[in-house]
Amino acid sequence: MTENTTENSKIVLGKNQYGKAEVRVVKITRDTGRHEIEDLSVTSQLRGDFTAAHLDGDNAHVVPTDTQKNTVYGFAREGIGSPEEFLIRLANHFTSEFAWVTGGRWAAEQYAWERILAHGEGHDHSFVRKGQEVRNAVVTKDGDNLYVISGLNDLTVLKSTESGFVGYPKDRFTTLQETTDRILATDVSARWRYNNDAIANGGSRSIDFNKTYDDVRALLLEGFTEGYSYALQQTLFQMAQKVLDAHPEIDEVRFSTPNKHHFVVDLTPFGLDNPNEVFYAADRPYGLIEANFERETISDPGNAWDGIAGFC
Amino acid sequence: MTENTTENSKIVLGKNQYGKAEVRVVKITRDTGRHEIEDLSVTSQLRGDFTAAHLDGDNAHVVPTDTQKNTVYGFAREGIGSPEEFLIRLANHFTSEFAWVTGGRWAAEQYAWERILAHGEGHDHSFVRKGQEVRNAVVTKDGDNLYVISGLNDLTVLKSTESGFVGYPKDRFTTLQETTDRILATDVSARWRYNNDAIANGGSRSIDFNKTYDDVRALLLEGFTEGYSYALQQTLFQMAQKVLDAHPEIDEVRFSTPNKHHFVVDLTPFGLDNPNEVFYAADRPYGLIEANFERETISDPGNAWDGIAGFC
Amino acid sequence: MTENTTENSKIVLGKNQYGKAEVRVVKITRDTGRHEIEDLSVTSQLRGDFTAAHLDGDNAHVVPTDTQKNTVYGFAREGIGSPEEFLIRLANHFTSEFAWVTGGRWAAEQYAWERILAHGEGHDHSFVRKGQEVRNAVVTKDGDNLYVISGLNDLTVLKSTESGFVGYPKDRFTTLQETTDRILATDVSARWRYNNDAIANGGSRSIDFNKTYDDVRALLLEGFTEGYSYALQQTLFQMAQKVLDAHPEIDEVRFSTPNKHHFVVDLTPFGLDNPNEVFYAADRPYGLIEANFERETISDPGNAWDGIAGFC
Amino acid sequence: MTENTTENSKIVLGKNQYGKAEVRVVKITRDTGRHEIEDLSVTSQLRGDFTAAHLDGDNAHVVPTDTQKNTVYGFAREGIGSPEEFLIRLANHFTSEFAWVTGGRWAAEQYAWERILAHGEGHDHSFVRKGQEVRNAVVTKDGDNLYVISGLNDLTVLKSTESGFVGYPKDRFTTLQETTDRILATDVSARWRYNNDAIANGGSRSIDFNKTYDDVRALLLEGFTEGYSYALQQTLFQMAQKVLDAHPEIDEVRFSTPNKHHFVVDLTPFGLDNPNEVFYAADRPYGLIEANFERETISDPGNAWDGIAGFC
Repeated sequence: MTENTTENSKIVLGKNQYGKAEVRVVKITRDTGRHEIEDLSVTSQLRGDFTAAHLDGDNAHVVPTDTQKNTVYGFAREGIGSPEEFLIRLANHFTSEFAWVTGGRWAAEQYAWERILAHGEGHDHSFVRKGQEVRNAVVTKDGDNLYVISGLNDLTVLKSTESGFVGYPKDRFTTLQETTDRILATDVSARWRYNNDAIANGGSRSIDFNKTYDDVRALLLEGFTEGYSYALQQTLFQMAQKVLDAHPEIDEVRFSTPNKHHFVVDLTPFGLDNPNEVFYAADRPYGLIEANFERETISDPGNAWDGIAGFC
Repeated sequence: MTENTTENSKIVLGKNQYGKAEVRVVKITRDTGRHEIEDLSVTSQLRGDFTAAHLDGDNAHVVPTDTQKNTVYGFAREGIGSPEEFLIRLANHFTSEFAWVTGGRWAAEQYAWERILAHGEGHDHSFVRKGQEVRNAVVTKDGDNLYVISGLNDLTVLKSTESGFVGYPKDRFTTLQETTDRILATDVSARWRYNNDAIANGGSRSIDFNKTYDDVRALLLEGFTEGYSYALQQTLFQMAQKVLDAHPEIDEVRFSTPNKHHFVVDLTPFGLDNPNEVFYAADRPYGLIEANFERETISDPGNAWDGIAGFC
Repeated sequence: MTENTTENSKIVLGKNQYGKAEVRVVKITRDTGRHEIEDLSVTSQLRGDFTAAHLDGDNAHVVPTDTQKNTVYGFAREGIGSPEEFLIRLANHFTSEFAWVTGGRWAAEQYAWERILAHGEGHDHSFVRKGQEVRNAVVTKDGDNLYVISGLNDLTVLKSTESGFVGYPKDRFTTLQETTDRILATDVSARWRYNNDAIANGGSRSIDFNKTYDDVRALLLEGFTEGYSYALQQTLFQMAQKVLDAHPEIDEVRFSTPNKHHFVVDLTPFGLDNPNEVFYAADRPYGLIEANFERETISDPGNAWDGIAGFC
Repeated sequence: MTENTTENSKIVLGKNQYGKAEVRVVKITRDTGRHEIEDLSVTSQLRGDFTAAHLDGDNAHVVPTDTQKNTVYGFAREGIGSPEEFLIRLANHFTSEFAWVTGGRWAAEQYAWERILAHGEGHDHSFVRKGQEVRNAVVTKDGDNLYVISGLNDLTVLKSTESGFVGYPKDRFTTLQETTDRILATDVSARWRYNNDAIANGGSRSIDFNKTYDDVRALLLEGFTEGYSYALQQTLFQMAQKVLDAHPEIDEVRFSTPNKHHFVVDLTPFGLDNPNEVFYAADRPYGLIEANFERETISDPGNAWDGIAGFC
């Protein structure tokens, strides 16, 4: 490797991480005849001192991604609980097991299932994928600091009225007509970061991540319904506010939301009116609104938001 | 075109159809403050005498695909009702409006929405995409014959026990181990064809397609849960049977169902047992079971099943 | 199973097939330092007597899909050659190995690679995915009959002029304006079926499937470029004609081709002209043209076209 | 809005941006009969003072996303040139046209086309999508600072030998076997950031972005082929080094690359050997290596890397 080292004496390794992505693990809890199912896709990425691998091809520090995968399965044997708790266990394991692993990023998607209704009752061991949104979580560890971000994506919502868009600036390229009654539709991607103290081991609060998830989801939906929307931006603020008001353990809420255009079809050439009843749902292009809402004083996010796509 | 005609004197136009695909139409019914939403992607394809367009570039018979799209929106103004009824209206329109259009194929997907729960009640005009399966329908018209096939896809189900696979033939390439307790999982794609008499204009029965859809869906799910499954094939039979027993207006049920493998992870290298609790859900390859179940005597399907992908 | 049999005495098993789908196999030929790569996704589906599995859960006839997968890998050890030849070998194996397997369907996609250009030469063992179209093949066996269909999909082509659409019928729903200069763009999905005699074991011709593929692909592209297009339908005919003229061993060519709309953007509100220079490429909806071209006399296709999606 | 303001006195708007995403623009240059095609998907996002829209639904500052779309088409009338130059023009326009727009992010994907070979020559106005990688660019403006990042994704490469993985640490969860001869395959996603001085208006260098793109792409491919790979990490370093050595105007190169596993299939149960000839290409999970390489001294990246997914 001498030759290489000489040639690129001025080129250095910057930030880096590596691991195994999309480890799909299905955990059945079958202590009784009434089974429970947990279904996750887990990604584990380690950070630390991996310079020798990059510069010299020396793998002495490279915990194989295959080992990271195995660890996910091994840890699942002891149960999942919630994606956040499971990822925290993985984070603590890798950073304590290998001296040179000083941090990392552990992420998961969770897919919801519900019991099939058979003969009027939820079945003991037969399930149907719930569809709708995908739950997700990201745990970042950086030395002694631990960050937890929870979220969801692909929660598609629509208001068929009580939305408009007026009062915007016009220039040479403006052709859009103002409207006081339009469809407002989006796929909600939301992430909320927990206060560092709240998640710290010795913290004063103990978080039930599953219960909080259900509650935040309900508040986001409820916030979407309320009032007249002058802009998707305003509606997002309303949604975030409900979450932050109800959950002091959450410091900030971030959104990345398409404005899914539903255009009123002009039916006049066919001799028909169209009082906002028939719409063409367009795919591309679409509006894209990214907005972060946070308390005036928040705990230090560190690098927790790095690499979360689609959020500014 | 003389030159071309000469060169290929022996080449003829075979079966053909054309139209507009994936016309996304969202219909809001807003007669009262409690809105209703219908959300469809419609494909219209015409059949008939289009030889001149192919051989000579003469478009005198080519009803533009843009016109077909416009017609979808124009017809939506008068309401959707059910995808099946909407497609039948389109079929009757095109085959009666243009003398040379002797038939065609009209297909739709429908995406379900449910009211957002806000302050304990379903909201009047705010909806969330239900997710889960996609409903579909195909209406085929061939001269005076009309065929209706309804269906669904992507209904993902899983049994965490009461499934096995034993007693299969072994050969040189067999390495699979028998098991009496495995996960059985699939994405149900099912289609059911209505008896021709039942859908004929002067038929003795009047079909409520929406109600039938809900009932068939429930029966398919219930059928999946029942009993011990010796093979996915057997479970499909059980599901079809429930539908055909309860719905005399349906002649046949067809399935195209992946066997979504969930492999028990071997945790013994890590000093752990794994009594069917931790599974690796694999993507590819997957088993693929296609099976049609029908009454002993059925009405003539004509060309109704042509072009429906993934069904043998 | 007695109970079930009684209940559904009038419900019978119709057409069915099953197997393993999307078996991804990469074969490296490394007899010399200059490696060759073949990269396929293979689907194997068996047909025959599988009634007992469906009705009684008796798997005595069910060659496991896992075994079918293993067989693909085992056969790959002896080489691929071409997808068509490889699938024929699989077809002959399964129908001769198991008495009750009377036929089936074997399909493959092949992904092309090319050598990386390094220091001015194609590298010996480093490759880059070629992208562009995906090659495919379907082999169907039905008793003693063997059918071979080759094809490609996702070959995206565009003509920036020499295309128009005029002379079409107008009705109440027509708003489309005629144009004599538009963009014509499509993703070519084409399939061509070989004459049964040409592929029969004792046939008079020996087909080089790889060479034929390259040639048909070139002819389709060349046919797309030639002359003024009055309709996509006409252009497809021109493309098919070139193939059938040059390849007597091919009986028919089928297309399923979207008309990918490129709309001229109206720039006049911005004080700009737009002489067919700036286009908006729309996703949905799109035109969809399906057309089959065949010799006046062709060999019997049997069930070779069943289940090929998107072809009427 | 008084009520809201009171309730959430402690909740503030954090970072935010909005705009129109995936504006697909196809530009045909037809000054002569030999047409040129440029095909881009452009996303425009504005940053600045948009607080009133979020907190009060006041849109006085909200340049409609529709206007941003129109501007893309209007600017395309004057030509594209390169995605980087086009985005810079958009950036300068929006930040100078609207006082409260102090910055933003403009991104594009570009899809390559090549002339169809017809009768031995590249056709004048018929093109085929080149496939292979997608080129991309991101231009960020933050006050007076301008940042340009170019890149590509989905460049799939494979080495069939000269790669191994040994010498890694083992723990309780390690089952992976060492190998000195494996397939190394990845989809290269690479981004390179230009030195700020090099892209500044009064900079000493004038960059030909198209030429640089072609050259960087070739160097990345060449770097992938060279030498024995002890780890994908090492190969990435080698690729970056070639780029940075040849292009002083580039400050850093970042990679996000899956390790696409190709497992040697065990054919011994079938009585066959497998000297690294038959592989199973797995989809999930996959290794994921993210690594940034940079000069020891680089110009300040500001917020240029924010929101670029998959890069740590």
